[in-house]
Amino acid sequence: MALVIAVPDAAMRDRLSPPPPGVNLRVWALGDEPVEQRFDLLVLPYMIPAPALSGLAGQEATVVQAQMLGFDGVAEHLPPGHVYCNAVDVHEAATGELALALILASQRGLPDFVTAAARGEWAHARYPGLALSSVLVLGTGGVGRQVAERLAPFDVELTRVARSTREDDLGTVHGWNDLNALLPHADIVVLAVPLNDSTRGLVDDDFLGRMAADSLLVNVARGPVVDTDALTRAVESGRIRAAMDVTDPEPLPATHPLWILPGALISPHVGGDVGSMSRRMDRLVREQIEALLIGHEPKNIVLRT
Amino acid sequence: MALVIAVPDAAMRDRLSPPPPGVNLRVWALGDEPVEQRFDLLVLPYMIPAPALSGLAGQEATVVQAQMLGFDGVAEHLPPGHVYCNAVDVHEAATGELALALILASQRGLPDFVTAAARGEWAHARYPGLALSSVLVLGTGGVGRQVAERLAPFDVELTRVARSTREDDLGTVHGWNDLNALLPHADIVVLAVPLNDSTRGLVDDDFLGRMAADSLLVNVARGPVVDTDALTRAVESGRIRAAMDVTDPEPLPATHPLWILPGALISPHVGGDVGSMSRRMDRLVREQIEALLIGHEPKNIVLRT
Repeated sequence: MALVIAVPDAAMRDRLSPPPPGVNLRVWALGDEPVEQRFDLLVLPYMIPAPALSGLAGQEATVVQAQMLGFDGVAEHLPPGHVYCNAVDVHEAATGELALALILASQRGLPDFVTAAARGEWAHARYPGLALSSVLVLGTGGVGRQVAERLAPFDVELTRVARSTREDDLGTVHGWNDLNALLPHADIVVLAVPLNDSTRGLVDDDFLGRMAADSLLVNVARGPVVDTDALTRAVESGRIRAAMDVTDPEPLPATHPLWILPGALISPHVGGDVGSMSRRMDRLVREQIEALLIGHEPKNIVLRT
Repeated sequence: MALVIAVPDAAMRDRLSPPPPGVNLRVWALGDEPVEQRFDLLVLPYMIPAPALSGLAGQEATVVQAQMLGFDGVAEHLPPGHVYCNAVDVHEAATGELALALILASQRGLPDFVTAAARGEWAHARYPGLALSSVLVLGTGGVGRQVAERLAPFDVELTRVARSTREDDLGTVHGWNDLNALLPHADIVVLAVPLNDSTRGLVDDDFLGRMAADSLLVNVARGPVVDTDALTRAVESGRIRAAMDVTDPEPLPATHPLWILPGALISPHVGGDVGSMSRRMDRLVREQIEALLIGHEPKNIVLRT
C-alpha cells in the first residue's frame, strides 16, 4: 500500500515531484474539506496557529510535520493519536541572521535613516555601534547558537545564559540564577528562548528595570516572552530600545503605540521566512518520507498525543 | 622646547589631558583665527573636505593627522612642507560593521518594515536573506578585509577582487581583469576600494548592466566610485537594489530621486562614526605624540608635500 503524503500547497507538491516510488503525494491543508482518507505524513502550512490543529480531530493517526520550530500550544490543541514533528534546522540559521540584522540596524541608526530618507534628509548623527558592546544571549538552543556564532567576528563581549550553568565549545553558559546579576551589564539582550511556562512574561517591568539605560532588547523568540505593556512603557520612557521580530499579540494592532515609538524596530515575524526556507523545508520532508518508507521513526518528534 | 599639539575640539583636549610631560596641548581647528605658532602635530577635524587644507598655507611644517582613512584630494590641496597621516585602524572595523548592517537590512527587508511601521502595518513578505548568497567584495584593504571577516559565519559564497590576483590567508583574491566575468554571478557586490583615478566612476551603466537582476550594490567606499545617475536609473528600473553610506554629491540633495526609490537604502556617511570612534582616535593621537617625543617618525604617513 502506498504511503499517502499531504503537503499544504501545490508549490511544495511540485517541488517534491516526482515523489519516490511507493509514495502518493497530495495537496491538502487544514481547513480544506474534511479528510476522507488516511495520511501517513501531513505537512502543515507555515505559521499555523496551534488552535487550528483541533481540525485534525477524527483523523486517523498521522505523522504531523510542522514548518515551524516553536510548538507552544500544540499539546493543548492537537487531538489524540498523532505524532508531531517540528522543523529543526529549517529556520535557525535564518532567525540568527535576522537577529544580527535587527541588532546592527538598531545599533547603527538605520531605522532613523530610513525615516529621514522619506523627507530627503541627510540625518548625520553618531550611534553606538556594535563593536566593543556587551551582548547577553538568553537561550542556547538552535537559534541562540546561530546568534552566538554570527556575533563572533564583531568584537563583542558575549555572555550566554540558559537553564543551568555549563561549559560548551563556545565557552561558559551561565545558569538562569545569574540572570538578574548579568542584566545591568549588557548593552544588548537577545531573547532566543522557547516559549513555555518559565519564559512566558519573562521580560516584565522588573527585567526591563534591571537593563542598563539605553540598552537594546532583541526578541527573536516568541512574542509572549515579553510583557508588551511593560516594554512599551520602557521604550516610551526612552530608557530602553527594542528590536523585535515577534510581538504579543501578533500581528501587532495597527494602532499600537510601539509601531511609531523612536527606539523601536519591528519586523513582522520573518525570522525563518527567507528565500532559502523552501529549500530547507523540502529537504526535511524528503528525509521524513525516506524514513517512513523504510519503516523508521520520523525525526524531530517533539510530542505524541 | 615643548611639543605643541593642536587638537580640533575641547572634547578631544579633555580626553587627552593631562598630556605627557613636554607636551603643550592646544585647541585649534582649521578655519579658526590664523595660526601664530608652530604646531608639531595638528589633528584635523573629522570629515573635513580636502580643499579646506589650503588653509594651512604659510603654516610652518607640521605633521597633519587626519581623522579619516580616505585621502582623495589631499595631494591637490595640502600646501607644501607638511606630512599627512591618515587614520588607519580607527574606522575600518566600524565601516565593515556598517557594511554588514546595510547588507542584512537590505536582504531582510528592514527598510520596508520601517516604512510600513509608520502606517501601523504588519507587512509580512518574503525577502531573499543573506545565507547561501554569492557576495563579491571589491577591495582587500582594511575595510574590505573587515567586511570579509564579518561575512564568514553567514554561510555565503565569498569572492574577493583587488588589483592583482593573489592568495592570502582568507583564500584567493581575483585580479581586476576577472571583474566583468564575476559580476553576473554575484547576489551582492560590496565596494570597499579607495577613490582614485582607476576607481572613479567604476560603477557605471556597463558595470550595473553586468550585475544580476535583483542583486544588491553596497557602497561603503566613496561616493564618486559610483556614477549616481547610472545607479539611479538602475534602481528606478527595479533591476538593482542599492545600499550606500556614501553618495556623490554628499550630502545627497533633498530632492534627489534616490532618497525615496524602493530598493535604495542610504545612511549619511556614518561608516566610521560610532561611539567607539573617539576612543580609537585618541589612541592613535597618543601613539603619534609618543613617537614625536622620542624623535621617531609618526605612523600612517600617506604623503609629504
